[in-house]
Amino acid sequence: MRPSSAAKRRAVLAAAEEAFLAAHYESVTMDDLARSSGVSKQTVYAHFGTKEQLFIELVTSMTRLAADDVHQVDALPIESADRIAPVLESILSRQLEAVLQPRMLRLRRLVIGEVPRFPELARAVFEHGPQRAVAVLAQILSDLDARDLLSVPDPTTAATQLNWLVMGAPVNDAMFLGDDAIPSTPAQRDHVRAAVATFLSSARRSAE
Amino acid sequence: MRPSSAAKRRAVLAAAEEAFLAAHYESVTMDDLARSSGVSKQTVYAHFGTKEQLFIELVTSMTRLAADDVHQVDALPIESADRIAPVLESILSRQLEAVLQPRMLRLRRLVIGEVPRFPELARAVFEHGPQRAVAVLAQILSDLDARDLLSVPDPTTAATQLNWLVMGAPVNDAMFLGDDAIPSTPAQRDHVRAAVATFLSSARRSAE
Repeated sequence: MRPSSAAKRRAVLAAAEEAFLAAHYESVTMDDLARSSGVSKQTVYAHFGTKEQLFIELVTSMTRLAADDVHQVDALPIESADRIAPVLESILSRQLEAVLQPRMLRLRRLVIGEVPRFPELARAVFEHGPQRAVAVLAQILSDLDARDLLSVPDPTTAATQLNWLVMGAPVNDAMFLGDDAIPSTPAQRDHVRAAVATFLSSARRSAE
Repeated sequence: MRPSSAAKRRAVLAAAEEAFLAAHYESVTMDDLARSSGVSKQTVYAHFGTKEQLFIELVTSMTRLAADDVHQVDALPIESADRIAPVLESILSRQLEAVLQPRMLRLRRLVIGEVPRFPELARAVFEHGPQRAVAVLAQILSDLDARDLLSVPDPTTAATQLNWLVMGAPVNDAMFLGDDAIPSTPAQRDHVRAAVATFLSSARRSAE
Protein backbone atom coordinates (compact mmCIF):
# COMPACT_ATOMS: atom_id res chain seq x y z
CA MET A 1 0.00 0.00 0.00
CA ARG A 2 1.34 3.42 -0.89
CA PRO A 3 1.51 6.02 1.87
CA SER A 4 -1.45 8.40 1.93
CA SER A 5 -1.10 12.12 1.33
CA ALA A 6 -1.53 12.79 5.06
CA ALA A 7 1.16 10.23 5.89
CA LYS A 8 3.54 11.87 3.42
CA ARG A 9 2.83 15.23 4.96
CA ARG A 10 3.62 13.89 8.43
CA ALA A 11 6.80 12.26 7.13
CA VAL A 12 8.01 15.55 5.65
CA LEU A 13 7.23 17.45 8.86
CA ALA A 14 9.10 14.85 10.93
CA ALA A 15 12.11 15.06 8.60
CA ALA A 16 11.92 18.87 8.71
CA GLU A 17 11.86 18.87 12.51
CA GLU A 18 14.95 16.71 12.65
CA ALA A 19 16.82 18.68 9.98
CA PHE A 20 16.01 22.22 11.13
CA LEU A 21 16.60 21.50 14.82
CA ALA A 22 19.98 19.94 14.04
CA ALA A 23 21.22 22.72 11.76
CA HIS A 24 20.72 26.30 10.65
CA TYR A 25 17.72 27.28 8.58
CA GLU A 26 20.05 28.11 5.71
CA SER A 27 21.82 24.78 5.56
CA VAL A 28 18.64 22.68 5.13
CA THR A 29 17.50 22.07 1.55
CA MET A 30 14.17 20.81 0.19
CA ASP A 31 16.17 18.06 -1.57
CA ASP A 32 17.47 16.80 1.80
CA LEU A 33 13.96 16.79 3.23
CA ALA A 34 12.52 14.88 0.27
CA ARG A 35 15.29 12.30 0.57
CA SER A 36 15.05 11.81 4.33
CA SER A 37 11.25 11.60 4.34
CA GLY A 38 11.19 9.21 1.36
CA VAL A 39 8.91 11.31 -0.83
CA SER A 40 9.52 13.11 -4.08
CA LYS A 41 10.66 16.69 -4.14
CA GLN A 42 7.43 17.55 -6.01
CA THR A 43 5.43 16.16 -3.09
CA VAL A 44 7.33 18.36 -0.62
CA TYR A 45 6.63 21.43 -2.74
CA ALA A 46 3.00 20.42 -3.32
CA HIS A 47 2.36 20.20 0.41
CA PHE A 48 4.36 23.14 1.71
CA GLY A 49 5.03 25.58 -1.16
CA THR A 50 8.47 26.87 -0.19
CA LYS A 51 11.15 26.09 2.38
CA GLU A 52 10.12 29.26 4.19
CA GLN A 53 6.47 28.13 4.38
CA LEU A 54 7.50 24.67 5.55
CA PHE A 55 9.67 26.18 8.30
CA ILE A 56 6.84 28.45 9.45
CA GLU A 57 4.38 25.53 9.45
CA LEU A 58 6.79 23.38 11.47
CA VAL A 59 7.53 26.02 14.10
CA THR A 60 3.92 27.11 14.58
CA SER A 61 2.64 23.54 14.80
CA MET A 62 5.34 22.52 17.35
CA THR A 63 4.61 25.61 19.42
CA ARG A 64 0.82 25.27 19.28
CA LEU A 65 0.88 21.57 20.16
CA ALA A 66 3.18 22.17 23.14
CA ALA A 67 0.97 25.01 24.40
CA ASP A 68 -2.24 22.98 23.96
CA ASP A 69 -0.59 20.21 25.92
CA VAL A 70 0.15 22.53 28.83
CA HIS A 71 -3.25 24.22 28.86
CA GLN A 72 -5.50 21.27 27.97
CA VAL A 73 -5.89 20.19 31.57
CA ASP A 74 -8.93 22.04 32.91
CA ALA A 75 -7.77 24.57 35.45
CA LEU A 76 -9.02 23.14 38.72
CA PRO A 77 -11.35 25.51 40.51
CA ILE A 78 -9.55 26.91 43.53
CA GLU A 79 -12.06 26.33 46.30
CA SER A 80 -10.18 27.66 49.29
CA ALA A 81 -7.05 29.59 50.22
CA ASP A 82 -5.07 26.45 50.96
CA ARG A 83 -5.58 25.24 47.36
CA ILE A 84 -3.95 28.33 45.81
CA ALA A 85 -0.32 27.20 46.10
CA PRO A 86 -0.90 23.58 44.94
CA VAL A 87 -2.93 24.63 41.88
CA LEU A 88 -0.45 27.33 40.80
CA GLU A 89 2.46 24.92 41.36
CA SER A 90 0.79 22.30 39.21
CA ILE A 91 0.11 24.66 36.28
CA LEU A 92 3.59 26.16 36.40
CA SER A 93 5.38 22.81 36.76
CA ARG A 94 3.59 21.52 33.68
CA GLN A 95 4.53 24.65 31.77
CA LEU A 96 8.18 24.57 32.88
CA GLU A 97 8.51 20.90 31.98
CA ALA A 98 7.05 21.53 28.50
CA VAL A 99 9.37 24.44 27.75
CA LEU A 100 12.45 22.54 29.01
CA GLN A 101 11.99 19.63 26.57
CA PRO A 102 15.26 19.45 24.58
CA ARG A 103 13.42 19.72 21.25
CA MET A 104 11.48 22.78 22.44
CA LEU A 105 14.72 24.39 23.66
CA ARG A 106 16.36 23.77 20.28
CA LEU A 107 13.30 25.26 18.59
CA ARG A 108 13.50 28.32 20.85
CA ARG A 109 17.20 28.84 20.05
CA LEU A 110 16.53 28.45 16.33
CA VAL A 111 13.61 30.92 16.33
CA ILE A 112 15.54 33.47 18.43
CA GLY A 113 18.55 33.17 16.13
CA GLU A 114 16.27 33.73 13.10
CA VAL A 115 14.38 36.78 14.47
CA PRO A 116 16.06 39.12 11.95
CA ARG A 117 14.93 36.89 9.06
CA PHE A 118 11.53 35.72 10.41
CA PRO A 119 10.18 38.41 12.75
CA GLU A 120 6.56 37.31 12.26
CA LEU A 121 7.43 33.75 13.15
CA ALA A 122 9.08 34.78 16.43
CA ARG A 123 5.98 36.85 17.21
CA ALA A 124 3.75 33.80 16.66
CA VAL A 125 5.93 31.70 18.99
CA PHE A 126 5.77 34.47 21.58
CA GLU A 127 1.97 34.62 21.37
CA HIS A 128 1.50 30.85 21.73
CA GLY A 129 4.13 30.67 24.48
CA PRO A 130 4.80 33.35 27.10
CA GLN A 131 1.85 35.57 26.17
CA ARG A 132 -0.70 32.77 26.44
CA ALA A 133 0.85 31.52 29.69
CA VAL A 134 0.65 34.97 31.26
CA ALA A 135 -2.98 35.42 30.12
CA VAL A 136 -3.99 32.10 31.74
CA LEU A 137 -2.30 33.06 35.02
CA ALA A 138 -3.78 36.58 34.95
CA GLN A 139 -7.30 35.11 34.66
CA ILE A 140 -6.71 32.86 37.68
CA LEU A 141 -5.22 35.69 39.77
CA SER A 142 -8.03 38.03 38.80
CA ASP A 143 -10.61 35.45 40.01
CA LEU A 144 -8.71 35.02 43.29
CA ASP A 145 -8.66 38.77 43.75
CA ALA A 146 -12.40 39.04 43.06
CA ARG A 147 -13.04 36.42 45.74
CA ASP A 148 -10.73 38.18 48.23
CA LEU A 149 -8.44 35.16 48.44
CA LEU A 150 -5.48 37.25 47.25
CA SER A 151 -4.80 40.91 46.66
CA VAL A 152 -3.91 41.31 42.98
CA PRO A 153 -4.80 44.84 41.90
CA ASP A 154 -2.98 44.43 38.55
CA PRO A 155 -3.43 40.81 37.40
CA THR A 156 -1.34 41.10 34.22
CA THR A 157 1.68 42.54 36.03
CA ALA A 158 1.33 39.98 38.81
CA ALA A 159 0.97 37.10 36.31
CA THR A 160 4.04 38.31 34.41
CA GLN A 161 6.05 38.40 37.65
CA LEU A 162 4.88 34.92 38.66
CA ASN A 163 5.60 33.53 35.20
CA TRP A 164 9.17 34.85 35.13
CA LEU A 165 9.92 33.99 38.75
CA VAL A 166 9.35 30.41 37.61
CA MET A 167 10.56 30.38 33.99
CA GLY A 168 13.38 32.97 34.00
CA ALA A 169 16.36 31.16 35.50
CA PRO A 170 15.82 27.62 34.15
CA VAL A 171 14.93 28.70 30.60
CA ASN A 172 17.80 31.18 30.42
CA ASP A 173 20.29 28.68 31.88
CA ALA A 174 19.21 26.07 29.32
CA MET A 175 19.35 28.60 26.45
CA PHE A 176 23.02 29.34 27.16
CA LEU A 177 24.28 26.14 28.78
CA GLY A 178 22.46 23.50 26.75
CA ASP A 179 20.57 20.39 27.73
CA ASP A 180 22.97 19.52 30.57
CA ALA A 181 21.56 22.52 32.45
CA ILE A 182 17.99 21.15 32.44
CA PRO A 183 17.08 20.51 36.09
CA SER A 184 15.76 17.10 37.12
CA THR A 185 12.00 16.78 37.66
CA PRO A 186 12.34 16.97 41.49
CA ALA A 187 14.62 20.01 41.17
CA GLN A 188 12.04 21.64 38.86
CA ARG A 189 9.32 21.01 41.46
CA ASP A 190 11.43 22.55 44.25
CA HIS A 191 12.19 25.56 42.08
CA VAL A 192 8.49 26.09 41.23
CA ARG A 193 7.49 25.70 44.89
CA ALA A 194 10.01 28.35 46.02
CA ALA A 195 8.93 30.77 43.27
CA VAL A 196 5.21 30.38 44.04
CA ALA A 197 5.95 30.87 47.76
CA THR A 198 7.76 34.16 47.08
CA PHE A 199 4.94 35.35 44.85
CA LEU A 200 2.17 34.40 47.29
CA SER A 201 4.00 35.88 50.22
CA SER A 202 3.75 39.22 48.41
CA ALA A 203 0.15 38.81 47.18
CA ARG A 204 -1.06 37.59 50.59
CA ARG A 205 0.69 40.36 52.46
CA SER A 206 -1.16 42.91 50.34
CA ALA A 207 -4.43 41.10 51.08
CA GLU A 208 -4.05 41.53 54.82
CA MET B 1 50.81 58.33 9.21
CA ARG B 2 49.99 54.65 8.96
CA PRO B 3 47.53 53.23 11.45
CA SER B 4 49.17 51.50 14.41
CA SER B 5 48.77 47.81 15.07
CA ALA B 6 46.36 48.57 17.93
CA ALA B 7 44.30 50.84 15.67
CA LYS B 8 44.11 48.08 13.04
CA ARG B 9 43.00 45.63 15.67
CA ARG B 10 40.22 47.97 16.81
CA ALA B 11 39.16 48.55 13.19
CA VAL B 12 38.85 44.80 12.57
CA LEU B 13 36.86 44.30 15.78
CA ALA B 14 34.50 47.15 14.86
CA ALA B 15 33.99 45.69 11.38
CA ALA B 16 33.46 42.24 12.90
CA GLU B 17 30.85 43.57 15.33
CA GLU B 18 28.93 45.16 12.50
CA ALA B 19 29.18 42.13 10.21
CA PHE B 20 28.40 39.38 12.74
CA LEU B 21 25.51 41.26 14.37
CA ALA B 22 23.93 41.93 10.98
CA ALA B 23 24.24 38.37 9.66
CA HIS B 24 24.80 34.76 10.56
CA TYR B 25 28.20 33.56 11.71
CA GLU B 26 28.46 31.44 8.58
CA SER B 27 27.83 34.20 6.10
CA VAL B 28 30.67 36.46 7.31
CA THR B 29 34.08 35.94 5.66
CA MET B 30 37.54 37.11 6.70
CA ASP B 31 37.80 38.74 3.24
CA ASP B 32 34.75 40.90 3.99
CA LEU B 33 36.19 41.93 7.34
CA ALA B 34 39.56 42.86 5.83
CA ARG B 35 37.80 44.93 3.18
CA SER B 36 35.43 46.76 5.52
CA SER B 37 38.10 47.51 8.11
CA GLY B 38 40.60 48.69 5.49
CA VAL B 39 43.43 46.32 6.44
CA SER B 40 44.98 43.40 4.61
CA LYS B 41 43.66 39.89 5.03
CA GLN B 42 47.09 38.94 6.41
CA THR B 43 46.66 41.54 9.17
CA VAL B 44 43.27 40.10 10.13
CA TYR B 45 44.77 36.62 10.37
CA ALA B 46 47.87 37.88 12.20
CA HIS B 47 45.74 39.51 14.91
CA PHE B 48 43.00 36.94 15.34
CA GLY B 49 44.15 33.59 13.92
CA THR B 50 40.87 32.24 12.57
CA LYS B 51 37.33 33.46 12.01
CA GLU B 52 36.30 31.32 14.98
CA GLN B 53 38.88 32.98 17.25
CA LEU B 54 37.88 36.43 16.05
CA PHE B 55 34.21 35.68 16.78
CA ILE B 56 35.04 34.40 20.28
CA GLU B 57 37.21 37.46 20.98
CA LEU B 58 34.45 39.80 19.78
CA VAL B 59 31.69 38.19 21.84
CA THR B 60 33.71 37.87 25.04
CA SER B 61 35.01 41.44 24.82
CA MET B 62 31.51 42.89 24.17
CA THR B 63 30.07 40.88 27.05
CA ARG B 64 32.87 41.69 29.49
CA LEU B 65 32.79 45.42 28.70
CA ALA B 66 29.01 45.56 29.16
CA ALA B 67 29.24 43.71 32.49
CA ASP B 68 32.11 45.91 33.74
CA ASP B 69 30.01 48.93 32.85
CA VAL B 70 27.09 47.69 34.95
CA HIS B 71 29.20 46.66 37.93
CA GLN B 72 31.85 49.40 37.93
CA VAL B 73 29.78 51.70 40.11
CA ASP B 74 30.70 50.91 43.69
CA ALA B 75 27.71 49.31 45.36
CA LEU B 76 26.52 51.95 47.77
CA PRO B 77 26.56 50.75 51.34
CA ILE B 78 22.96 50.25 52.47
CA GLU B 79 22.86 52.12 55.73
CA SER B 80 19.27 51.67 56.76
CA ALA B 81 16.13 49.73 55.83
CA ASP B 82 14.71 52.61 53.81
CA ARG B 83 17.75 52.54 51.49
CA ILE B 84 17.23 48.90 50.47
CA ALA B 85 14.66 49.52 47.72
CA PRO B 86 16.42 52.54 46.13
CA VAL B 87 19.82 50.79 46.01
CA LEU B 88 18.42 47.55 44.55
CA GLU B 89 16.36 49.54 42.02
CA SER B 90 19.42 51.47 40.94
CA ILE B 91 21.57 48.35 40.41
CA LEU B 92 18.82 46.48 38.56
CA SER B 93 17.83 49.44 36.38
CA ARG B 94 21.45 49.81 35.26
CA GLN B 95 21.63 46.10 34.50
CA LEU B 96 18.32 46.02 32.61
CA GLU B 97 19.27 49.04 30.53
CA ALA B 98 22.62 47.47 29.60
CA VAL B 99 21.08 44.15 28.53
CA LEU B 100 18.34 45.90 26.51
CA GLN B 101 20.80 47.79 24.28
CA PRO B 102 19.94 46.77 20.70
CA ARG B 103 23.50 45.61 19.98
CA MET B 104 23.57 43.50 23.17
CA LEU B 105 20.20 41.95 22.23
CA ARG B 106 21.51 41.11 18.74
CA LEU B 107 24.61 39.59 20.35
CA ARG B 108 22.42 37.54 22.71
CA ARG B 109 20.32 36.20 19.79
CA LEU B 110 23.43 35.37 17.81
CA VAL B 111 25.11 33.54 20.71
CA ILE B 112 21.92 31.62 21.59
CA GLY B 113 21.47 30.63 17.94
CA GLU B 114 25.09 29.41 17.84
CA VAL B 115 24.99 27.34 21.06
CA PRO B 116 25.22 24.04 19.13
CA ARG B 117 28.37 25.26 17.34
CA PHE B 118 29.98 27.32 20.14
CA PRO B 119 28.88 25.86 23.49
CA GLU B 120 31.92 27.26 25.33
CA LEU B 121 31.23 30.73 24.03
CA ALA B 122 27.64 30.68 25.30
CA ARG B 123 28.94 29.50 28.66
CA ALA B 124 31.37 32.46 28.82
CA VAL B 125 28.54 34.90 28.01
CA PHE B 126 26.41 33.27 30.71
CA GLU B 127 29.19 33.63 33.28
CA HIS B 128 29.84 37.31 32.52
CA GLY B 129 26.11 38.04 32.33
CA PRO B 130 23.40 36.40 34.45
CA GLN B 131 25.78 34.46 36.71
CA ARG B 132 27.82 37.52 37.67
CA ALA B 133 24.64 39.58 38.17
CA VAL B 134 23.16 36.97 40.52
CA ALA B 135 26.43 36.71 42.48
CA VAL B 136 26.52 40.49 43.04
CA LEU B 137 22.89 40.50 44.25
CA ALA B 138 23.46 37.46 46.47
CA GLN B 139 26.33 39.23 48.23
CA ILE B 140 24.16 42.29 48.91
CA LEU B 141 21.23 40.17 50.16
CA SER B 142 23.53 38.09 52.34
CA ASP B 143 24.86 41.28 53.99
CA LEU B 144 21.31 42.56 54.57
CA ASP B 145 20.39 39.23 56.14
CA ALA B 146 23.46 39.31 58.41
CA ARG B 147 22.43 42.78 59.59
CA ASP B 148 18.80 41.68 60.17
CA LEU B 149 17.51 44.20 57.65
CA LEU B 150 15.96 41.40 55.55
CA SER B 151 15.33 37.71 56.00
CA VAL B 152 17.23 35.91 53.22
CA PRO B 153 18.07 32.40 54.40
CA ASP B 154 19.20 31.35 50.90
CA PRO B 155 20.85 34.37 49.22
CA THR B 156 21.56 32.66 45.88
CA THR B 157 17.97 31.49 45.42
CA ALA B 158 16.67 34.90 46.49
CA ALA B 159 19.09 36.73 44.18
CA THR B 160 18.09 34.48 41.26
CA GLN B 161 14.41 35.24 41.93
CA LEU B 162 15.04 38.97 42.15
CA ASN B 163 17.16 38.94 38.99
CA TRP B 164 14.49 37.16 36.91
CA LEU B 165 11.58 39.13 38.36
CA VAL B 166 13.33 42.11 36.79
CA MET B 167 15.00 40.69 33.68
CA GLY B 168 12.64 37.87 32.61
CA ALA B 169 9.79 39.63 30.84
CA PRO B 170 11.61 42.51 29.14
CA VAL B 171 14.56 40.41 27.92
CA ASN B 172 12.31 37.61 26.67
CA ASP B 173 9.93 40.06 24.96
CA ALA B 174 12.85 41.73 23.20
CA MET B 175 14.38 38.36 22.20
CA PHE B 176 11.21 37.38 20.34
CA LEU B 177 9.67 40.72 19.36
CA GLY B 178 12.78 42.70 18.43
CA ASP B 179 13.88 46.21 19.27
CA ASP B 180 10.35 47.65 19.07
CA ALA B 181 9.57 45.74 22.27
CA ILE B 182 12.29 47.54 24.29
CA PRO B 183 10.46 49.55 26.97
CA SER B 184 11.17 53.28 27.34
CA THR B 185 13.48 54.31 30.19
CA PRO B 186 10.55 55.45 32.42
CA ALA B 187 8.71 52.17 31.70
CA GLN B 188 11.88 50.24 32.62
CA ARG B 189 12.07 52.16 35.93
CA ASP B 190 8.41 51.39 36.74
CA HIS B 191 8.95 47.73 35.91
CA VAL B 192 12.04 47.51 38.14
CA ARG B 193 10.25 49.29 40.99
CA ALA B 194 7.30 46.86 40.88
CA ALA B 195 9.62 43.82 40.75
CA VAL B 196 11.75 45.02 43.69
CA ALA B 197 8.56 45.76 45.68
CA THR B 198 7.27 42.21 45.14
CA PHE B 199 10.63 40.75 46.13
CA LEU B 200 11.00 42.91 49.26
CA SER B 201 7.46 42.27 50.33
CA SER B 202 8.39 38.59 50.55
CA ALA B 203 11.84 39.09 52.15
CA ARG B 204 10.48 41.58 54.69
CA ARG B 205 7.53 39.41 55.62
CA SER B 206 9.94 36.60 56.49
CA ALA B 207 11.99 39.03 58.59
CA GLU B 208 9.05 39.89 60.82
